[in-house]
Amino acid sequence: MNCRRWRLATGNTAVTDHPSPIISHASLALARCDELARWSEEAGRLTRRFATPALAAARATVAGWMHAAGMEVRRDNVGNLIGRYTGARPAAGTLLLGSHLDSVRDAGRYDGPLGILAALACVERLHAAGRRLPFAVEVAAFADEEGVRFGTAYLGSAALAGRFDPAWLDLRDEGGVTLAEAIRADGGDPAAIPADRHPGGLLGYCEAHIEQGPVLEARGLPLGIVSAIAGQGRYALSFRGEAGHAGTVPMALRRDALCAAAEFVLAAEHLARERPGLVATVGQIAAEPGASNVIPGRATLSLDVRHHDDSAREAATGDLRAAAARIAAARGVALDWQVAQEHPATPCDPALTARLARAIEAAGYPVLALPSGAGHDAVMLAQIAPVAMLFIRCAGGISHNPAESVAAEDVAAAIEAMERFLLLMTDDGGR
Amino acid sequence: MNCRRWRLATGNTAVTDHPSPIISHASLALARCDELARWSEEAGRLTRRFATPALAAARATVAGWMHAAGMEVRRDNVGNLIGRYTGARPAAGTLLLGSHLDSVRDAGRYDGPLGILAALACVERLHAAGRRLPFAVEVAAFADEEGVRFGTAYLGSAALAGRFDPAWLDLRDEGGVTLAEAIRADGGDPAAIPADRHPGGLLGYCEAHIEQGPVLEARGLPLGIVSAIAGQGRYALSFRGEAGHAGTVPMALRRDALCAAAEFVLAAEHLARERPGLVATVGQIAAEPGASNVIPGRATLSLDVRHHDDSAREAATGDLRAAAARIAAARGVALDWQVAQEHPATPCDPALTARLARAIEAAGYPVLALPSGAGHDAVMLAQIAPVAMLFIRCAGGISHNPAESVAAEDVAAAIEAMERFLLLMTDDGGR
Repeated sequence: MNCRRWRLATGNTAVTDHPSPIISHASLALARCDELARWSEEAGRLTRRFATPALAAARATVAGWMHAAGMEVRRDNVGNLIGRYTGARPAAGTLLLGSHLDSVRDAGRYDGPLGILAALACVERLHAAGRRLPFAVEVAAFADEEGVRFGTAYLGSAALAGRFDPAWLDLRDEGGVTLAEAIRADGGDPAAIPADRHPGGLLGYCEAHIEQGPVLEARGLPLGIVSAIAGQGRYALSFRGEAGHAGTVPMALRRDALCAAAEFVLAAEHLARERPGLVATVGQIAAEPGASNVIPGRATLSLDVRHHDDSAREAATGDLRAAAARIAAARGVALDWQVAQEHPATPCDPALTARLARAIEAAGYPVLALPSGAGHDAVMLAQIAPVAMLFIRCAGGISHNPAESVAAEDVAAAIEAMERFLLLMTDDGGR
Repeated sequence: MNCRRWRLATGNTAVTDHPSPIISHASLALARCDELARWSEEAGRLTRRFATPALAAARATVAGWMHAAGMEVRRDNVGNLIGRYTGARPAAGTLLLGSHLDSVRDAGRYDGPLGILAALACVERLHAAGRRLPFAVEVAAFADEEGVRFGTAYLGSAALAGRFDPAWLDLRDEGGVTLAEAIRADGGDPAAIPADRHPGGLLGYCEAHIEQGPVLEARGLPLGIVSAIAGQGRYALSFRGEAGHAGTVPMALRRDALCAAAEFVLAAEHLARERPGLVATVGQIAAEPGASNVIPGRATLSLDVRHHDDSAREAATGDLRAAAARIAAARGVALDWQVAQEHPATPCDPALTARLARAIEAAGYPVLALPSGAGHDAVMLAQIAPVAMLFIRCAGGISHNPAESVAAEDVAAAIEAMERFLLLMTDDGGR
């Protein structure tokens, strides 16, 4: 066993003399990601959506690790799990770390959980050394960041940030279950969600997350800091034509809703290809009634539009809506366009981000700031606290895919940087 | 009550002096279609697929009516229900009537059941008069003509015709249930299906069915006879690209499987529009993993191609396959093209059809022969018996749609024509 003693080399105060090297904590974090990946709604692949038994099982597993790390553990009504490692000075406030525990369908195992487990590793190292920081450290495992089940992301962090809209409780999943019913089935009380807003005293929110893009790999860097999170719009489109018999209705008399939807899918792709920095994605589609021998009378699809510049995103969204209307009109098909969610770009907090950059430098790595095309819970937390984000290199930039892969050395770099960040927060008096 | 006594006016033998007019039998048939429509898998709309509890309930209901009409009733292992009204001379063989009891999703109530109930009305009128024909009359309620659940039509009539392919037993529905499991759950023994082939002695198969097209309505005719059933190909296509994060993968680096599928949907529509008589339909589509914030790594779709001329259908199918391959290659996406079913055009039997035409004329209606763009169980029965088909006018040519509508007078015309057809078979000695 490698018992090299590790000591923080920077600042005035070492956080801990810890008996095991950071790389062993990094390996443990990755092994725990593997363990959590066993909690899935589907055999043979990882799918862990909001308020499912799979998510509850993963939450219980993380709660056990938090308890063992000396944390007070609570869950709130929307289903977030929050572990609190008490500080030495109650008046010094709370630093919130964490990420999300839910996943997309057929997901990778690091998008979300790795941020929780890297934060947990920092607390475990404090706990093993019997060390308290002046401020409390909380680690959140958010219940819904991906928004797969109800089409609206950040349900978990929205609740903690006091931005949960009670109107969302009537949203239905594809099985017809309302959000309120899902929350109750998961043991939460929908009516109590507003009272779950974080009590305050937040010094900041810092989230580690895999980059989900290729930039760090291309630059040969294990870590990056996020300058801003791209703005994002999510829309639900429905084209309604006329169902009919696939063998008897001549082509010229058809009002095929799926053909209209297909035309829109290609229009969105074409428009996004022509505008630098814009991405537009149709990730879900369905034809109704959905039989091979019936002309689709209805076609529904999701649309996701992102750009780091809000005005460019808004202009593109307007143009896409106009394109959908043109396509529908030309085919004699009705169009319904619903806004599921719209978030402007979220800049990270300059002061907190500068501190995170110093921590990365102190750990011996160059600092690269880059925008995040992916959304993160920091979007919600930014409404009540300064936020900073630490990106971890992932292989090939691949994410939302079972091929997601992260190196233990890069996770070790992230844990070290976060530990140094905690130290800098301590040195600065927790402000 | 209208007690006008009705007497067949043609031929040497009246089938029956029956106390109630045919229109009351027609109204009863339509009321029974309403009653059967209550047996659905889905609340608020009619969906009754193969081997579902809804289909079993409808089957039990029809079995009760068959018993009451003096028929011996059996069900076979694939789930067909067959009522037999014994003939006076065992050596005279069997005339098979009937249609299918399953439906598409969000179906109308007449496509299938009306043909069963029109045939049942003929037997009820014989039974009420205490009359036996020399030959037996069987009425079949087939378990699967639409093929919605397993993507392969005619499962019921294929079994009766001895054309059930045991390889189909491994097909899976969208919930992962195999055809064999579904049959067992419905009380059948998959291994015994080959032994359910009709024992023989079939004089022919005659099926009444709504037209599902606009021709009879345009000509002002209640009835038509089918010259041939269009050939049909059903295919399952899959495009495989690469899943990825909707916010982080630039448009230029994507291999979006749904975009490839959308391009194919439009290519199929374009090709079919350009070729007279051809119809091509994509009725089912799915994107995987199926989250709004994930680039589809896989897209699957169904393709249905029909033409009354087999060579035109085959040429179009080849061109569509080439188009799919071109689209996939241009996008760096893999294509899988599976043949679900291919049936050549099925001509109806000239002699049996001529007899049906004489029956229509005897009932006082002009005779119009037309091809059927829709497939029917007669395609399978044609492999073991002469087949004829009687079309009934439906409003607006609308079918595979809850707006399906049929006039009681037209159903009465069909029952009268079928009764006269039975009489002509009797006059001709059942040959």
